[in-house]
This record gives sequence, structure tokens and C-alpha cells, in this order.
Amino acid sequence: MKKIAVLLSGCGVFDGTEIHESVLTLLSLSKAGAQYQCFAPDINQMHVVNHFTGEVDKTATRNVLVESARIARGEVKATTELDITDFDALVIPGGFGAAKNLCNFATNGSECEVNPLVTDFINEFILAKKPVGFICIAPMMIPRLYGHGAKGTIGNDVDTVAAFNLMGGHHQAATVHDIVVDEANKIVSTPAYMLAGNIAEAHSGIEKLVAKVLELAK
Amino acid sequence: MKKIAVLLSGCGVFDGTEIHESVLTLLSLSKAGAQYQCFAPDINQMHVVNHFTGEVDKTATRNVLVESARIARGEVKATTELDITDFDALVIPGGFGAAKNLCNFATNGSECEVNPLVTDFINEFILAKKPVGFICIAPMMIPRLYGHGAKGTIGNDVDTVAAFNLMGGHHQAATVHDIVVDEANKIVSTPAYMLAGNIAEAHSGIEKLVAKVLELAK
Repeated sequence: MKKIAVLLSGCGVFDGTEIHESVLTLLSLSKAGAQYQCFAPDINQMHVVNHFTGEVDKTATRNVLVESARIARGEVKATTELDITDFDALVIPGGFGAAKNLCNFATNGSECEVNPLVTDFINEFILAKKPVGFICIAPMMIPRLYGHGAKGTIGNDVDTVAAFNLMGGHHQAATVHDIVVDEANKIVSTPAYMLAGNIAEAHSGIEKLVAKVLELAK
Repeated sequence: MKKIAVLLSGCGVFDGTEIHESVLTLLSLSKAGAQYQCFAPDINQMHVVNHFTGEVDKTATRNVLVESARIARGEVKATTELDITDFDALVIPGGFGAAKNLCNFATNGSECEVNPLVTDFINEFILAKKPVGFICIAPMMIPRLYGHGAKGTIGNDVDTVAAFNLMGGHHQAATVHDIVVDEANKIVSTPAYMLAGNIAEAHSGIEKLVAKVLELAK
């Protein structure tokens, strides 16, 4: 049975992991007969957004690992707990948490940096030549992690595509039902809620992404 | 196109809505071609549980409506905003939020009361003879809402079954793949994470529950 790591970034689309995307990832893995283990960096969120009003709650602080545990039903580990020999692949759902907590693309655009804990974690998979799936906005980390010419998609948003390419990536436009595969680097990506009009559309691409990641996992 | 209300109780299995169950409900509705609108009561949670440690955070307060907005991607309404003529049916996912925030079964057992805002909300569906689906531990509200002899399932947990029957309900044992239907009252229930060993199992029963609720919705 293949065992897949899932990297979370909090719990909620505006300041953490996109909840639908993460649950759809876990569902697709489970239905495909794979095991999963959720991970998250033990760091504070960039900020806390009241998802009802859309406003930043300046009085609040939340921890990415602690909030990610809500999606994982308590079964989440800090990124520093990874033993790469236990895992066949990695999937990273989107949400603003990927662009605010895992890296700082939301504030720094094409000048963004990936959090060092996150870089260390994902690099273990890259160095071991294990496949990684990036969903929604998470592919913005691809150019930083894989270097020049790595392929990925965030859908078709003009400004975001320009930033991806400016960072050295090779963007490929895609619909919500598509996946983009960089076979050489073993990278799979799909736009999900960058384009999805509803949860069934997001499911379509994520299910394909998970199937391809499992296929690439030796 | 049928329009279904989904009643949330926070965001996280230990103090709010079970996230997987709620997302699987939304997915099943969307794939079946139904529209949905999430609702939640505008009340504080009973408490906040750190889902990483499992401990209650005594310094924290969170609001059920605000946290439910994380699952709904911001698109949630207070229960008092319901216009019953807009909706064909209701589905209530589980998680401890259903037993701590929607009612107080978690602390009061068979002496539990349903929150007045929640009673008012669900009663609108009952009075209009519109079907209601109860998932996981949420069926513990059935005897209070429908009165003597109403049928439902929470799986097979001996103590919980005894409480359900003591409250006047008519419990029917079920597996994670089953739904129990009270045709006269238009109630559908399924055990989900009361029994599920993984998310694919939870999906199995929830998909059937949603299909039956849609079938019963005129």
C-alpha cells in the first residue's frame, strides 16, 4: 500500500489550507487504496482572517500545525517529524495558507521565499525523486523549489502566470479539469479553486492529480 | 434545481462540524446537481479544543457562525436568515459541534436540550414537511425534534443507542455503508464517523444519505 504525505497550511481558505481541496485530496487517496499522513509546519499563521466578515482579526494568533489538525482529525505531524523512507509521494493542497504560510507569495509576489521548514520538508521528496502534487495556488512554489524550467499550472490568471514565469517556471495553461505533468521532475499540478465554480469541479482535477501522483510513485 | 440547506456547527471534529463529513455532503450535493447554502447559529462554541494536543484551550472563545464560514468559503448565513420557501431539504453533518453547540448531548446525555436557535431553524423544515438528513452524532437531536417513535441511527454504540431510545427515539442499528429512513417523518440518517475507519467509508454512507434526501425532496 502506497503511503502519501499531505502538507497542510492551516484550516480555512483565506488564511490556511483550502478545506475542500484538502478533504478531496484525502478522499481521492483513500478511495485509491493509499494511506496518508498529514504534516504541517509548526509556525504561526501570517494572520487570522474572520471568514464570515472577510476581515483580518488583528487580536488573534493561530498556529499552522494546530489548526491543520482540524482537517486531519488530530492526526497531523510537524514537518520536522518526516522520515522520507516512509513515504512514496507528497500532495500540497491550496488555499491562501499556501501563499501566506508555506511561502509569502501573497505579499511578495515573484520575490517570494518559501518558509525554510517547508523548503526542507519538500526538498526531501525532491532529492529522493519522489513525485509531488501541487494544487491551486501551491504551484507558485515550484519555480523556487525545482529551479529554471520546471512546469506547472495555476490555471490561466494573467498576473499569476506572469509571476510564475518571471520566477523561472514554465507555466502551462489548464482548465479546472486538467492536470499538468512535468515528467522529468515528477511534478503534477491542477488549478482547483483557482478556477473551480463549485466543489464538483474542484474534485474533478484533484482526483486526476492524485491518480497521477500515485502512478508516478514507484 | 433543488436547493438544500446545510447546518454547520463550527469547524473541526472535536469542537465543531466534522470537516470531512461536511465537505463530503457538499460534494455529494454538487455532484448530484443540487445547490446548497450553509447556515450556522450565531452563538459561541461550548469551548475550543486544540486539535493537535486534544486539550481544551481555556483562554479561547470562538463563534460557531464565524468558524463555520471556513468550511463554507465565507458563504454562510445565520440560522435566523432562513427563508424556508427557498429550500427543499436540510442536511446536518456531525462532529462534536453537533453534540456541544447545536445541542448539549455531549454534556447532558439523554437529558440534552437542542439550542433554541437550532430548534427554530430545523422546525421550519419539519413543519413544512421537508426532508432532513442527520449524519454521525447529529441524529441524537431526532427524538427531541420529532417526538416519540421517530427513527434514526448513530451506528451501534451501546450507550448512545440507549440514550437515543430513552429520549423516545426508535434506534435502528446500521453499518457505515447504510442509511436509515423514517419515511413518515422524512428523516434520513447515517453513522459516518461514528463507525468509519477512513474517509472513503464515511463517503459511502453520506453519498447515499444525500441521494435519499434529494429523492424525498419534492
